[in-house]
Amino acid sequence: MSNKHIVIIPGDGIGVEITAAALNVAKAAADKCGFSFSYEIRQAGGAALDKFGVPLPEATIAACRQADGVLLGAVGGPEWDHVAPELRAEKAILGLRKELGLYANLRPIKVFPALAGQSPLKPELVSSVDILIVRELNGGIYYGDKKEAAIIDGVEKASDTEVYSRPEIERIVRMACRAAAGRRGRVMSVDKANVLAASRLWRKVAVEVAQEFPQIELTHMYVDNCAMQLVLNPGSFDVLVTSNLFGDILSDEAAVLSGSIGLLPSASLGDGTGLYEPIHGSAPDIAGKGIANPLGTILSAAMLFRYSLGNSQAASMMEQAVEQVLADGYRTQDIYQQAFTKVSTEAMGQQVIARL
Amino acid sequence: MSNKHIVIIPGDGIGVEITAAALNVAKAAADKCGFSFSYEIRQAGGAALDKFGVPLPEATIAACRQADGVLLGAVGGPEWDHVAPELRAEKAILGLRKELGLYANLRPIKVFPALAGQSPLKPELVSSVDILIVRELNGGIYYGDKKEAAIIDGVEKASDTEVYSRPEIERIVRMACRAAAGRRGRVMSVDKANVLAASRLWRKVAVEVAQEFPQIELTHMYVDNCAMQLVLNPGSFDVLVTSNLFGDILSDEAAVLSGSIGLLPSASLGDGTGLYEPIHGSAPDIAGKGIANPLGTILSAAMLFRYSLGNSQAASMMEQAVEQVLADGYRTQDIYQQAFTKVSTEAMGQQVIARL
Ligand SMILES: CC(C)[C@H](C(=O)O)[C@@H](O)C(=O)O
Ligand SMILES: CC(C)[C@H](C(=O)O)[C@@H](O)C(=O)O
Repeated sequence: MSNKHIVIIPGDGIGVEITAAALNVAKAAADKCGFSFSYEIRQAGGAALDKFGVPLPEATIAACRQADGVLLGAVGGPEWDHVAPELRAEKAILGLRKELGLYANLRPIKVFPALAGQSPLKPELVSSVDILIVRELNGGIYYGDKKEAAIIDGVEKASDTEVYSRPEIERIVRMACRAAAGRRGRVMSVDKANVLAASRLWRKVAVEVAQEFPQIELTHMYVDNCAMQLVLNPGSFDVLVTSNLFGDILSDEAAVLSGSIGLLPSASLGDGTGLYEPIHGSAPDIAGKGIANPLGTILSAAMLFRYSLGNSQAASMMEQAVEQVLADGYRTQDIYQQAFTKVSTEAMGQQVIARL
Repeated sequence: MSNKHIVIIPGDGIGVEITAAALNVAKAAADKCGFSFSYEIRQAGGAALDKFGVPLPEATIAACRQADGVLLGAVGGPEWDHVAPELRAEKAILGLRKELGLYANLRPIKVFPALAGQSPLKPELVSSVDILIVRELNGGIYYGDKKEAAIIDGVEKASDTEVYSRPEIERIVRMACRAAAGRRGRVMSVDKANVLAASRLWRKVAVEVAQEFPQIELTHMYVDNCAMQLVLNPGSFDVLVTSNLFGDILSDEAAVLSGSIGLLPSASLGDGTGLYEPIHGSAPDIAGKGIANPLGTILSAAMLFRYSLGNSQAASMMEQAVEQVLADGYRTQDIYQQAFTKVSTEAMGQQVIARL
């Protein structure tokens, strides 16, 4: 028995269906291991804007702060594309990251053998892909000083500040080194130290932090080169650690190599509650049809069990069940190919449960 | 007859061999069209540092300013990796861009049918790739205010400023629209307007500029999504216009899709002299062996003829000859595969000349 409590934020679009499917799987997995948790549903994004007038209600923040973990579906959609900037769905995401102090975004990118053929890359390049991207999530140009467009000395200008401090870099590089210790022991720090002052500090601090981890091999790569190497040689990466902005770009680039972004989970961690969400969006075009792929959300729930509920047993069960379902030929529409069995969101969840 | 004059900067590593081969081709192509040009050789990068104590001597800048165009090989190498930051080879590149006011970096990415098989992507994805990346080259976070690491209120911090002004955005978007008018008429502007104030100004100005070009279709994409789409669907892009930093990352990502970065040229344009260089580096490991691929430099020289010498006839001749040489099976080592004819840098140049 446990008194763990999680918050579920379905969000918008397919978020509702995929979190429902993932919750069923999570309950079943917990049952199997004699573990229990309670949960509550909270709103954020467009749904919250419609109901409460803000994309990130205080009640949602408060509930998340008190919970052990948060499972989020996806936010945003065309209905809310033209609202004022401070009301946009992205603000819910950026706000949660800030309010919960989520400074590390963990994005494992693995190729499921059953889906390797769907990668845009040639098969020989993808089979061995197993990357963990550790993106700094609470600093950098996302949160530095901003000047919205204004006329200065007769010229219209706008600016943003990329800023990093030593403690911010230390904690994220430390997290990357710790993660690498449980993997293949290699950390690639990605920066643009030949141009950016913030990157030069990043590189200096990364080298210092790595000395605390004699078993870890730290190397450095410029972001432009990394954007190339991810495509040319994705199997060569183990853990990749980088800034907020570079992480945003590189993690999405790396994600598509897997051939199925519908399956990729993420964890955003800080010193308190962790937040877990699939990396894909709210896919408004297919929302409500019951055809969305719930596997990325199910795998995010697995990460939640591992990192926030301290239950790796349930986590591994869920991960193995997902792999088995794919090996057995079940596919939602986004990954469907002839000769496989096409299933709905809910049925996919049931198939996973059947294999726990 | 013409009195056109170009500066050749061999630079470091393989730069010497590839510019020599390209110069031979350029001379032969000019001859064929009854065109003539004069040239002088100048130093930049590590070679300049060794000889003159600075990576970008005043004499080089002055010569470039007076020339009609500059052909550059590549700069940098491990010998100069540990010099003071202000003496690094990159400073030569960044300095030339600033001194010559080169605000637009044009990077055409085309897949040569003969080499399509070498792309890391599946053949069906690459066959139709024909992208022109227009990267802003004289602004943004490269040149905005920088604060090197310093202790502020007890915490070590460093920062850089991403800043764009309306005129900077206008001229680069205009160049992209003009280029698109001679192509398939589509411009994709890439930004991070959901997070960056500078991107919001970029997007607003891009929309306004596009109204001057009723025949051009302008669309917008976030940089993280673009990093995905370049891999998932590279054939969908025509002209892509973006900031200095995003252009650095995306143009390198796009380059590797071609399967042969040794063949890709670039042009950096401003209001005065233009600078042309292959996109690859100085490859110190193979320097001096006569095996480097000169085709990227030859194609850069072709762009120089087209954009800076006003001679598209010679440019097209050179481009067609390169395509023919590949179709005829000649390969330098970097693109060699069994059953083809392996040739040296110089021999490759001669084969191109034979097909002019
Ligand atoms: C929605 C957006 C602000 C967000 C980001 O840029 O961080 C998204 O792209 C992501 O990666 O989670
Ligand atoms: C060498 C470096 C400063 C340069 C840049 O970042 O612009 C290079 O990567 C390029 O793209 O030409």
